[in-house]
Amino acid sequence: MSKKIVTGCRFSLSVMSDSYVNMIVGAIKKVNTANVWSATDALSTTYRGRREHVLDGVKGVFTAVNDGRTHITMEAAFSKGCPNDSDDDYVLAEDGTLLNQSSEKFGVLSKIAFYPLGTERYMEHISAVIKMARERGIFGKISHYATEISGDVNEIFGFLGDALEYAEKNTEHYVLQTTLSVNSPSLQGGK
Amino acid sequence: MSKKIVTGCRFSLSVMSDSYVNMIVGAIKKVNTANVWSATDALSTTYRGRREHVLDGVKGVFTAVNDGRTHITMEAAFSKGCPNDSDDDYVLAEDGTLLNQSSEKFGVLSKIAFYPLGTERYMEHISAVIKMARERGIFGKISHYATEISGDVNEIFGFLGDALEYAEKNTEHYVLQTTLSVNSPSLQGGK
Repeated sequence: MSKKIVTGCRFSLSVMSDSYVNMIVGAIKKVNTANVWSATDALSTTYRGRREHVLDGVKGVFTAVNDGRTHITMEAAFSKGCPNDSDDDYVLAEDGTLLNQSSEKFGVLSKIAFYPLGTERYMEHISAVIKMARERGIFGKISHYATEISGDVNEIFGFLGDALEYAEKNTEHYVLQTTLSVNSPSLQGGK
Repeated sequence: MSKKIVTGCRFSLSVMSDSYVNMIVGAIKKVNTANVWSATDALSTTYRGRREHVLDGVKGVFTAVNDGRTHITMEAAFSKGCPNDSDDDYVLAEDGTLLNQSSEKFGVLSKIAFYPLGTERYMEHISAVIKMARERGIFGKISHYATEISGDVNEIFGFLGDALEYAEKNTEHYVLQTTLSVNSPSLQGGK
């Protein structure tokens, strides 16, 4: 059953600071994961559950880890529909209440790559998702192997929510790969 | 023409240290990029060229950035065959000499995810690549949304070379997404 319902996200936080261990562990602990299945290994943390709860948790971690000064990136792969997906390891909360919403605002620079799998029509789905970024006003540029977007954290995660909803409705199996960056000494969009 | 020949890799280095800027910029500069097209933006560096030269450069950066102490990760997307790929931005060196080989050995923990695009037979290609990791003795475990591998840096990049060769020969368009980790305070394989 899980194959048809469970959305997952495997994400890795990178904190460019000598204090990275405490900052990463602290952020992971701060998130309310009551509505998702959660596991952390040596490389990543994985959440599995309903699409909106997974995205809420990931946004919660990213917001919690950002101290407004330190350069931090989050590499995340959202996915749903793998034919070999496990029938275990998930929480499907009936309550739709999002547990990690906040009013924080900060600029995020991001790259995204959308991979609809098992279909010859994948390029049109990719175009549809990029069009959604343009419509939200966060489109930066199409680059080699990724599309750059930038904006306020709420706009970026709003778009990711739209993209995951599109993917769920229009593909059997997808991966949406993204890297989110804050406080980079390189040019930073969305502030 | 480039669509049929050019392999690319977009990679982002994360250095968990206050000295991250110098370490990243220093490593990028140390690599001999005469045989690839190279560009760095605010999120990543991209190499484009022949498969073996791109992989040689990526291994060169990863080896150059590792000081044997600092926890560092590299997130990399290798790809070839995008129908919308640019006809520009590449170097196809005729000389097959690899410019960044070294005799360094160190343990690497990694996750990989292989995405053959535009084909309904993608799951069998994924299985073939995971089988290659098993045959090389670097297979760790299949996890949600990724396969974990670990071993010496030369074994890991040897496997990536095999996987890219398989992908080039057996798929029209692929993305091979990987994260490589060294000196993690979490359990680290391959040492």
